[in-house]
Amino acid sequence: MKEENAKIKQISGGVCAAEGFLAAGVYCGIRRNRTKKDLALIFSEKPADAAAVYTRNLVKGAPLAVTKRHVDSGRISAVICNSGIANTCCAGGEEVAEKTCALLAEELGIPAESVAVASTGVIGQPLDIEPIKRGIPELKKSLSRDASPAAQAIMTTDTVEKQVAVEFELGGKTVRLGGIAKGSGMIHPNMATMLVFLTTDAAVSRTMLQKALSGDIENTFNMMSVDGDTSTNDMVLLLANGMAGNEEITCDNDDFRTFMCALNTVNVALCRMLAGDGEGATKLLDCVVTGADSTENAKKAAKAVVCSSLVKAAMFGADANWGRVLCAMGYGGAEFDPGKVRVDFRSAAGAVTVCENGSDAGFSEEKAKAVLSEKEIVIEVSLGEGECSAEAWGCDLTYDYVRINGDYRT
Amino acid sequence: MKEENAKIKQISGGVCAAEGFLAAGVYCGIRRNRTKKDLALIFSEKPADAAAVYTRNLVKGAPLAVTKRHVDSGRISAVICNSGIANTCCAGGEEVAEKTCALLAEELGIPAESVAVASTGVIGQPLDIEPIKRGIPELKKSLSRDASPAAQAIMTTDTVEKQVAVEFELGGKTVRLGGIAKGSGMIHPNMATMLVFLTTDAAVSRTMLQKALSGDIENTFNMMSVDGDTSTNDMVLLLANGMAGNEEITCDNDDFRTFMCALNTVNVALCRMLAGDGEGATKLLDCVVTGADSTENAKKAAKAVVCSSLVKAAMFGADANWGRVLCAMGYGGAEFDPGKVRVDFRSAAGAVTVCENGSDAGFSEEKAKAVLSEKEIVIEVSLGEGECSAEAWGCDLTYDYVRINGDYRT
Repeated sequence: MKEENAKIKQISGGVCAAEGFLAAGVYCGIRRNRTKKDLALIFSEKPADAAAVYTRNLVKGAPLAVTKRHVDSGRISAVICNSGIANTCCAGGEEVAEKTCALLAEELGIPAESVAVASTGVIGQPLDIEPIKRGIPELKKSLSRDASPAAQAIMTTDTVEKQVAVEFELGGKTVRLGGIAKGSGMIHPNMATMLVFLTTDAAVSRTMLQKALSGDIENTFNMMSVDGDTSTNDMVLLLANGMAGNEEITCDNDDFRTFMCALNTVNVALCRMLAGDGEGATKLLDCVVTGADSTENAKKAAKAVVCSSLVKAAMFGADANWGRVLCAMGYGGAEFDPGKVRVDFRSAAGAVTVCENGSDAGFSEEKAKAVLSEKEIVIEVSLGEGECSAEAWGCDLTYDYVRINGDYRT
Repeated sequence: MKEENAKIKQISGGVCAAEGFLAAGVYCGIRRNRTKKDLALIFSEKPADAAAVYTRNLVKGAPLAVTKRHVDSGRISAVICNSGIANTCCAGGEEVAEKTCALLAEELGIPAESVAVASTGVIGQPLDIEPIKRGIPELKKSLSRDASPAAQAIMTTDTVEKQVAVEFELGGKTVRLGGIAKGSGMIHPNMATMLVFLTTDAAVSRTMLQKALSGDIENTFNMMSVDGDTSTNDMVLLLANGMAGNEEITCDNDDFRTFMCALNTVNVALCRMLAGDGEGATKLLDCVVTGADSTENAKKAAKAVVCSSLVKAAMFGADANWGRVLCAMGYGGAEFDPGKVRVDFRSAAGAVTVCENGSDAGFSEEKAKAVLSEKEIVIEVSLGEGECSAEAWGCDLTYDYVRINGDYRT
């Protein structure tokens, strides 16, 4: 992994870094605020193989049903996404989503089944097709290699746009993989109000593409939590148009492992951006659990820590209340001996061991305060049981989370 | 149930309402703040049968291990509880808890095994026996029929003391059942930083007492959440000294059902007090799910609603964002058809139907705002699937929750 990682180079371009992908973002009128773009488009010059994962919420947004049908039926050429209204819990929602695909397909001269559609925003309010209809021609006109307008158009309460891209080699060919994401609130393991659109010019068979995505999200997006709420509308969509000219990946070979490694690099980067920009967040929390007797236990422990409201509030206050870390792991379902646990807090300001053998390690409160006052906090937990590890990402719980969510609709 | 309920009369006296129970609460010096009592005692003149339930957190406070041994070994005459330090995640914690029991037993002239011990407060700091040792003689001297000092001494971030008591008849004899509780943060299904001490003068065999308690908490304390964190130190302890002179309840007869009914009345009242006084809470949330096809589904749905950070923040802002109610139920693991769901918000200001058949019911925002601006909000959900129902209690998520937990230790 190390060696492969060294060959994965971060580049600019986000979802447009890969050959043949264009994007656009415009204001079409779904939102009242005219300064916030609300309609995004990603277009592949060559129909792309697609893999997707969707929210596990029983209440699903109408666009997910439509996208699933289209992804299952064949290649995808375009992704259209609006923000402002989720198109969920509304009679006739699927018709609006289908109509959106049809209108875009007509404008672009592609089949409606080759369009994926997504929505994010308020649940329960009807999505009007009129602004989308009016916006589509401009959307087409705006298509370019600049992914920023699209990254901005999918944002809701996000404060910064989220883009990443990498370059690597497959069989001597240079390939690219990039993505844009939106997150903020309702972010939790098993998908969340989170939209991630990934594009690559690598040639990867559909089966292997889905295998790569389904495998990777277990260690990335499903290990991230902002507030414990799993949204109705989330999806991660990965498009591969093969324009890099590499030999198509059709089995679990070296090229596939390199691709997995690149995908993980991109997804971890997006996870960190999503968690760090969680609603109201001032800090990124990164919990690394080592020494577990199974990966499952390591994952349960790491997730419990980043999901705990009490840990999150303590991190906001730069309070080294390590008892809450142990407490969270204790109810998180992981098996371990509390008497063997060691906890370290680490950041740009240094590291401090706060708990050893399940008891207070006798640390300097001043030092701990300095460590926890940074923007990125690593909570390192060693269980002393075995060789397995896991990592989870979250953010602190702040006054602003309450303010943002106390009156989201107005 | 209805008829029996009518015969259950609320009375004053809390944990001292039942015959033969005395209580006390003093400041002994565990806390720095001398105006806050930190040591409580409940004493039964006659050794009482005891039933208990403990936290399911893997990380357990030292006092729980000691109390469990003592409760398992026979009757209980006294309960001693300190606040300020949890006596958890500290080497030698059990020795301190055993020593506490021994010192109290010596003072009261009872066996050490007849003492139950509990602690609540910060995790990971050692509990000094000295202040407890000094406080015990005064604690004994202060014993009276006034339960308030004990109710105050077990409080941590609680803002009000929590007491309730009822009177009812068993076979012509008047019996009493009462309790005191502390809660506030870390309150969540499956026990929480919650201590509940219940006393009754009814004669109930130990087996039936445990059956009553274990059965009732599934519908009361395990259906309550403040912040999703399950604490290390929680317990519900029920003592029955038989001094009312009723024929001992030894099987599942009419008397047992009446007792269960009284126990439920007391526990529901305490749940409402605990949830309504959740850390930083300004509102009590009461979610009633009806029309489920199974009690399990009804419980999952009701719990998910009161646990959702987004629902809780919306209630704080008096925002009728019913989509978050559906969303929470959707990821809560309950099986239902979102298209059949109806949601009503109800309070002292009236009721408003916000969702019908899974879609917006077309309601007055002004009316909804008025309904949600009250102190007690009932979220009524009808699933339209069957005849089963469940109720769960929670509170809103506020700026003060973040403030309190951002710097708990200082």
